[in-house]
Amino acid sequence: MISVGIIGGTGYTGKYLLEFIKEHEMIADYAVYANKSAGSKLLDIFPELLGVIEDQTIQSVSELSYNHDFYFVSLPHGESLKYIPTLLDKGIKVIDLGGDFRLDSKELYNEWYGFDHTSANLLSQKVYGLADVENTLISNSKFIANPGCYPTSIQLALIPFIKNYTDSIISISSASYSGSSGAGKSAKTELLLSELDGNIKAYNVNKHRHQPEIEQELTKVGMKSPFAFTTHLLPIARGIYSTSTIHLKSVIAEDEIKEKYLSEYANSIFVRMRNVPPELKWVVNTNFCDINISAKNKTAVITSTLDNLIKGASGQAIQNMNKMFGWNETLGILKQKEN
Amino acid sequence: MISVGIIGGTGYTGKYLLEFIKEHEMIADYAVYANKSAGSKLLDIFPELLGVIEDQTIQSVSELSYNHDFYFVSLPHGESLKYIPTLLDKGIKVIDLGGDFRLDSKELYNEWYGFDHTSANLLSQKVYGLADVENTLISNSKFIANPGCYPTSIQLALIPFIKNYTDSIISISSASYSGSSGAGKSAKTELLLSELDGNIKAYNVNKHRHQPEIEQELTKVGMKSPFAFTTHLLPIARGIYSTSTIHLKSVIAEDEIKEKYLSEYANSIFVRMRNVPPELKWVVNTNFCDINISAKNKTAVITSTLDNLIKGASGQAIQNMNKMFGWNETLGILKQKEN
Amino acid sequence: MISVGIIGGTGYTGKYLLEFIKEHEMIADYAVYANKSAGSKLLDIFPELLGVIEDQTIQSVSELSYNHDFYFVSLPHGESLKYIPTLLDKGIKVIDLGGDFRLDSKELYNEWYGFDHTSANLLSQKVYGLADVENTLISNSKFIANPGCYPTSIQLALIPFIKNYTDSIISISSASYSGSSGAGKSAKTELLLSELDGNIKAYNVNKHRHQPEIEQELTKVGMKSPFAFTTHLLPIARGIYSTSTIHLKSVIAEDEIKEKYLSEYANSIFVRMRNVPPELKWVVNTNFCDINISAKNKTAVITSTLDNLIKGASGQAIQNMNKMFGWNETLGILKQKEN
Amino acid sequence: MISVGIIGGTGYTGKYLLEFIKEHEMIADYAVYANKSAGSKLLDIFPELLGVIEDQTIQSVSELSYNHDFYFVSLPHGESLKYIPTLLDKGIKVIDLGGDFRLDSKELYNEWYGFDHTSANLLSQKVYGLADVENTLISNSKFIANPGCYPTSIQLALIPFIKNYTDSIISISSASYSGSSGAGKSAKTELLLSELDGNIKAYNVNKHRHQPEIEQELTKVGMKSPFAFTTHLLPIARGIYSTSTIHLKSVIAEDEIKEKYLSEYANSIFVRMRNVPPELKWVVNTNFCDINISAKNKTAVITSTLDNLIKGASGQAIQNMNKMFGWNETLGILKQKEN
Repeated sequence: MISVGIIGGTGYTGKYLLEFIKEHEMIADYAVYANKSAGSKLLDIFPELLGVIEDQTIQSVSELSYNHDFYFVSLPHGESLKYIPTLLDKGIKVIDLGGDFRLDSKELYNEWYGFDHTSANLLSQKVYGLADVENTLISNSKFIANPGCYPTSIQLALIPFIKNYTDSIISISSASYSGSSGAGKSAKTELLLSELDGNIKAYNVNKHRHQPEIEQELTKVGMKSPFAFTTHLLPIARGIYSTSTIHLKSVIAEDEIKEKYLSEYANSIFVRMRNVPPELKWVVNTNFCDINISAKNKTAVITSTLDNLIKGASGQAIQNMNKMFGWNETLGILKQKEN
Repeated sequence: MISVGIIGGTGYTGKYLLEFIKEHEMIADYAVYANKSAGSKLLDIFPELLGVIEDQTIQSVSELSYNHDFYFVSLPHGESLKYIPTLLDKGIKVIDLGGDFRLDSKELYNEWYGFDHTSANLLSQKVYGLADVENTLISNSKFIANPGCYPTSIQLALIPFIKNYTDSIISISSASYSGSSGAGKSAKTELLLSELDGNIKAYNVNKHRHQPEIEQELTKVGMKSPFAFTTHLLPIARGIYSTSTIHLKSVIAEDEIKEKYLSEYANSIFVRMRNVPPELKWVVNTNFCDINISAKNKTAVITSTLDNLIKGASGQAIQNMNKMFGWNETLGILKQKEN
Repeated sequence: MISVGIIGGTGYTGKYLLEFIKEHEMIADYAVYANKSAGSKLLDIFPELLGVIEDQTIQSVSELSYNHDFYFVSLPHGESLKYIPTLLDKGIKVIDLGGDFRLDSKELYNEWYGFDHTSANLLSQKVYGLADVENTLISNSKFIANPGCYPTSIQLALIPFIKNYTDSIISISSASYSGSSGAGKSAKTELLLSELDGNIKAYNVNKHRHQPEIEQELTKVGMKSPFAFTTHLLPIARGIYSTSTIHLKSVIAEDEIKEKYLSEYANSIFVRMRNVPPELKWVVNTNFCDINISAKNKTAVITSTLDNLIKGASGQAIQNMNKMFGWNETLGILKQKEN
Repeated sequence: MISVGIIGGTGYTGKYLLEFIKEHEMIADYAVYANKSAGSKLLDIFPELLGVIEDQTIQSVSELSYNHDFYFVSLPHGESLKYIPTLLDKGIKVIDLGGDFRLDSKELYNEWYGFDHTSANLLSQKVYGLADVENTLISNSKFIANPGCYPTSIQLALIPFIKNYTDSIISISSASYSGSSGAGKSAKTELLLSELDGNIKAYNVNKHRHQPEIEQELTKVGMKSPFAFTTHLLPIARGIYSTSTIHLKSVIAEDEIKEKYLSEYANSIFVRMRNVPPELKWVVNTNFCDINISAKNKTAVITSTLDNLIKGASGQAIQNMNKMFGWNETLGILKQKEN
């Protein structure tokens, strides 16, 4: 049993960390630290959890306790940087749910995030925690950068293809659609229901911060082809749907491709290969990523979907924590009936 | 002033034909013919039009009158075929809002629509009515096949690019998202709000009937590259959003591309070039198609959006009718303040 | 032909004023005055109106011109007060779309709006502009307080009942549901789509500012019974739906009640009596209010629905302006086909 | 550990029965029986449960096995009648989630349901299972009629008031709003997303089958005043929101009323009293019913909300089963962290 600190857990992802921790048999206790919400009661932030979790007062990050065995850090860009180096110095295990350590090079932070990375030495120490792809580094890691929501949906969709067929690929184009909770809980006119109801729009075209993250990781598994990535805002609160179109140099049989995916994910409990394009609602409120592949002539279309707040954030973070501590990876995030 | 017959106008597109006809100063009267709804009152089908249009009894298609000067045909696939040859024989002008005549070859109907086209000789007589691209054939036509909703959004987005840069294109991938009204008014479990609320899914992947239509038309303006097209269902009633990703052999400056688009659409009242990705709600309930182009390195992303029931159906049909009769193309579908 | 000034027209209601003015044959020109948006282009605030209206620069309210023949004032509570007295002094006709003059007594402003009314003398000079109930005062008025959105839906639903049956009424309870645009365009966390999607809640229970407005007006037509009014927020952008339950001392035949309503609204173009409970979508984007009455035993249930931005704001304001100037009341807001 | 039979569990409520059974530590196994879906695989009906439950073939109701220890019956009106008498004859415990046994008199079935009740003798043997109000009959029952979704929301909201203040009440008016899943999974045009998106409407006004159910039960706790109940359809899939307005003969202090509610529900884990009007999303996907009371002058407004598929159907059914078997009432439907 461990004690967990949550730094910055008062946004949408925070709620799910709390829900998973409640179900988690290896977590004895936890405390929440925040900036603006410090001093508030947890149940004032999350009234829906009344009767579900015990209330507690949110503490100030400025008086952060280092007594917990493990920390989730869920802060805006540029903020995680302020706390993680100290935690690591003290030998405490950490998972960062933000983007401050996902990229490998200091230069990319200047270009895509617009800040000067003050702990660039840690970029090579983190393990990029794409939890559903076999990676023994995760189990041995003390510091995990939890992947972005879009990048999780696209990497899980493309990795088996790239690993097996990279030389056959002419180009890859991913169009991703996200619910509004991906933009966080901040009060912006453009995120009002009055603005978004029945609406949809592309945003950050050719400049979304998840693009270098995806390219960095897909290159590691062998991607050689040009890759493009476009993000859109949906008029719903939850979920991501990604459609990746691959133009091929020659025909590859759909059945053969499907075999490769099934083989790649044979031990991945949270990746569900589908025979039809998945529906977003199948994965909402779960830690699953559902994937379908359709190939015809020289075109392969891979659809993937996940809950941005769970598989794309808190659920994958719990899964990574489970792996770091050597526990069953489903603890807290999936209860399967034993027979 | 003319008299108009609407064959099959009791679905979602029919409502807008009625609304536009009401506003149209050159239409003296109209009558609606249908199958299942014959005998019903128009205002029982469209109660929202009470106080807006005069009521009338829907007549049976089986007793179709040939006394009108012009006909809109808005029937399910395979049904238009039964009426259009006779109308044309009698020298009456017709616009078909369905898909029965959009494709140029009989074989494509066997392959994509699954029926044997019984009036294949008319396929070469129709004019494909993409109303916002300069085409003198439309004005002189007696028979127009009104483009599909997805194809309109993608052709308007890609034609200027292909015309100017076809040799630079490696591949094109279009991901399109449509509201549920595109699937019509039929009672299917999968179209229930209970199923679609907060949901999204790809459908007809690699087998949507609009794919051969788009390829046929883009090939005519010079497309040589591979093209892919994937359709998705959105949890909203109205509108289409298409994102087309073009991988390029070499960098082309965004400003230069934009110039070409502005030039192509200089006289196209209903195409609005945008400096940011358009929002769907800007075009809902209008006959506009809004387009944005973003180019960076060797990637161009073109977003386009329109109302599937108006620019993607009834609005474009009225616009085509206006052109066929030599009227101002905005009659009935746009009232601009003169200064 | 007149010239119109719009003070504060950059919110959701402002858009519809612009759209109606564009269609209005008696308005020669207009200018928009605002606080925060001064200096911006109109089409930057309303990009959807590109190609529909001529652009113009929004002027500062602090440099308000008094050269227009007529003014719409659409400002937050307490702001209209600053401009309307001067306009009236100069003999200019004004319609206030806000709440600053709807109530008749200075005390009610202290109690319900929480401010001290500095032009209380004007409260008795205004005409309360419920446009669909016959009221010759409107036509002769120089200053109209445009009714609130909820009050319009409830007064139109209840006035004929109260006029005819006030002595039979035990109690009236109205439950009203509004889309989020009723709360305006301000960036508040509670109005985010992420918060409201799939959500619903009552708000301002027993303390909504529209309650004294409704009670004041219903008392004028004879209401003697207790009245309650509860407001709710819907997860949609547009529209109001009100259900008013009347408990009766004795049975009154439904048909008889319906007769009274039909008689009351015989000349009211924008009130549509329905034989079934109306659907909100029938009235969205129109100036109609649809009403149904169902009576059984000693209970009468009256449902009414309207578009909060049109019949509940801008549409009714245009209708009132038309009446003030002696024009056809439908100008700009309804084009009916003449036969 | 028991074995459970689910008769007719392939609709929206069935899914949640399966999810709760999966979590339930006292259920060893289960089988599903249906009519139209017989022969299908459970995971073809509920693809979202892949990896969550074990698949099984749905069996035909016509070959119903009587070997289970307990049965949930979830069939359309008039269908439960065919199976429940036999189950009871065999001494097997049953919970009926439908309406066939909720009412106490045969005559009410003729009037409100339009069928002749063929097992009227069982109407007095059933226990009406409003699980959150103390009722020792439930624990000892062999046959429970699970309350309707609307009636649960309104009874929980009104029972403490009526018990304590019935003589002070002039009238009660409840307006209830439900998501579309309450209408079931049948393919009807009026339930299409294209019809309901952004829409809202009252339905079955003065003739909803839940009205006699509510009146019957509220009369049992002392209601003497007139009661009215109006139902509406919301453009969302899940949840019920009820607003009950009580006109009072004299002022009762809000604080005093709240005390009575807190006292009544002191041991009701699934009723959460709120200090502000509850939000629907607080209860979606839970077995909670959240209630707020606001009283001012002679008006009391009680808002209550619940998930129609859980507290309004499957969740309450599990809770009732837990009580029937003498287990902790939270088994399967709530996991609270022990400290």
